[in-house]
Amino acid sequence: MPRVLVVGCGLIGTSVALALRARGRDEVLLHDTEPAHLAVAVERGAGQPWDGRATVDVAVVAVSPRHTAQVLAALQQLDIALTYTHTASFQSQVQREVEALARDPSVVVGGHPLAGRETSGPSGASSELFVGRPWAVCPGSGSREQAVAVVTDLARAVGAEPLLLSAEAHDQAVALLSHLPQVAASGLAAVVATAGASTDVRLSGTGLADTTRLAASSPALWADILEGNAPHVAPLVRRLTAVLDRLASDLEALPSEAARNGVVSLLREGNAGRALVPVKRGVSDEGFGAVPVDVDDRPGQLAALLTAAADLGVNVEDVRVDHVPGRPTGVISLVVQRDAVAVLREGLAARGWRVQGFPDHSAP
Amino acid sequence: MPRVLVVGCGLIGTSVALALRARGRDEVLLHDTEPAHLAVAVERGAGQPWDGRATVDVAVVAVSPRHTAQVLAALQQLDIALTYTHTASFQSQVQREVEALARDPSVVVGGHPLAGRETSGPSGASSELFVGRPWAVCPGSGSREQAVAVVTDLARAVGAEPLLLSAEAHDQAVALLSHLPQVAASGLAAVVATAGASTDVRLSGTGLADTTRLAASSPALWADILEGNAPHVAPLVRRLTAVLDRLASDLEALPSEAARNGVVSLLREGNAGRALVPVKRGVSDEGFGAVPVDVDDRPGQLAALLTAAADLGVNVEDVRVDHVPGRPTGVISLVVQRDAVAVLREGLAARGWRVQGFPDHSAP
Repeated sequence: MPRVLVVGCGLIGTSVALALRARGRDEVLLHDTEPAHLAVAVERGAGQPWDGRATVDVAVVAVSPRHTAQVLAALQQLDIALTYTHTASFQSQVQREVEALARDPSVVVGGHPLAGRETSGPSGASSELFVGRPWAVCPGSGSREQAVAVVTDLARAVGAEPLLLSAEAHDQAVALLSHLPQVAASGLAAVVATAGASTDVRLSGTGLADTTRLAASSPALWADILEGNAPHVAPLVRRLTAVLDRLASDLEALPSEAARNGVVSLLREGNAGRALVPVKRGVSDEGFGAVPVDVDDRPGQLAALLTAAADLGVNVEDVRVDHVPGRPTGVISLVVQRDAVAVLREGLAARGWRVQGFPDHSAP
Repeated sequence: MPRVLVVGCGLIGTSVALALRARGRDEVLLHDTEPAHLAVAVERGAGQPWDGRATVDVAVVAVSPRHTAQVLAALQQLDIALTYTHTASFQSQVQREVEALARDPSVVVGGHPLAGRETSGPSGASSELFVGRPWAVCPGSGSREQAVAVVTDLARAVGAEPLLLSAEAHDQAVALLSHLPQVAASGLAAVVATAGASTDVRLSGTGLADTTRLAASSPALWADILEGNAPHVAPLVRRLTAVLDRLASDLEALPSEAARNGVVSLLREGNAGRALVPVKRGVSDEGFGAVPVDVDDRPGQLAALLTAAADLGVNVEDVRVDHVPGRPTGVISLVVQRDAVAVLREGLAARGWRVQGFPDHSAP
């Protein structure tokens, strides 16, 4: 079993260490320039503090992406590990920096676990954080096969699914799938911030809440990410503004047949894009249906409803709870495989649940 | 009790009728040019078919907003009702049309229930659709007080909370809180549609799914809404593109202190805007915390977890289910009042649930 050094005991680093320990790897060493983070990680059983000299098989650099290459090069200068990897959310820039700074870039292979959490720091870490998640492994042009194999094995060892692709392909993909949504959410919320003061926000629906959820992200962290992947993100932001500017022009040109067609066509392209988004288990929305149920908003209602669904043998894929501001009632939508919708609707209604769309509403 | 005629037996019209009937109003008449819709509404107990002549106290026009004023004026030509209202998602344009077409606009008061559903048509209607939801009531400059009172009472009678505001203020608010998020989601998804074909979508996280959810909306319906409120929506879309263009310029100008500050500042404005968004019961994210739990993905897990929360006396405000594509595990996050987080975390961990952040993970 390889001896592993994790440098950076934040959420990701500590989770890597916990995941290795939970799967029987005893030799995990930990390092962090912040003593409090290191202490929490050690206390949680993630490993032993590194003495600054001991050598290992693999060093995992899980620090801020801005400092990744520098830390990695410094470790290699001390000849600490046979193989080096990191967990930066962007790869091309780090790879260029590694090639400029590291003594031997051929034993450095970049990695990026796609396993974000709303928490940060070692206290939010989990040995199960990476289970079943993609873990991008991005070799450079000069990476040794052996180093790529070691990093791929490490990703598998923490429960992740390694996905081998170039730094360029990785950065292009996350720019579209992660960084652009962040930008769109922040931009939308910024407009709400400037225009919202004079607006009665009670008129907002759940759509606004979903669409702006990412806007709550940490500005410092995301500035680093957007900066590190700017060459891929900027053109996509321009593409988005071009799409939206065209829509604004169409809205200004109404009523006109061409303008109306433009509006419809953007909305249709939106439908097509949404259909590409993996919603559950890699499949899109279309295979699923929602069963909305009116409930009283008190402890246990959700549990009772889900118990009823389980009794009916229906696996609930997702739940949406739609509270009513200031009122003790709500709507719980159970999302299930489309072919289970009818069974669930009828079964719940028969048990007295107020399934929307059933004429006979009586409280359970 | 006033006699009510509902014209248009779609989701909203049928729900209005069902809500009135469920609250003891026997005299509800129904009309729809689509016989199948009318038949479903009647069969569901929403009321009796209108004979085209019978007069009523209030006529509720719940047809497509494009035809609202025309239908309303035609009813008034036949002298069918004492008071007229409608349920259009935009108000100013309908009000202008009513003033141009209707014989007596002083007894016409616009309304808009803020109670969207993902379904449409009479089969998705519910007598509880409006409970606790805002219902905008938008009088014109010449509206009679008596007519405003009748429409306000009607909103209350179906369980909604009437909110009196001008058509202009309404349209401005929904442009920001509902129409702009739709545009942003559709625009983002349209970029995904064009750029996504060459991208490995396995690298996407839950952020993309949330941010593009609205993009699944009906193009025909939303083209009508955006067209009807274009004068308010277009300037907001321009404001969003200005914000995003500035960000793109900053990303292109990196590395530079000013550019970096620009990126951070947009992300901070996003934080501020997000804090204005009512997430639960009119309060923002801040009063709530999430407790993430690793679970096996099989029927009954969610129910068992929620039952455990209920046993601990904790009211679960929201649930997020985070599946792992292709793997039989998932993460369920229970969202609870912030002061209940510790109780829930410790209580669940003590019962053997794999609460993330607890070092000792053992299956329940």
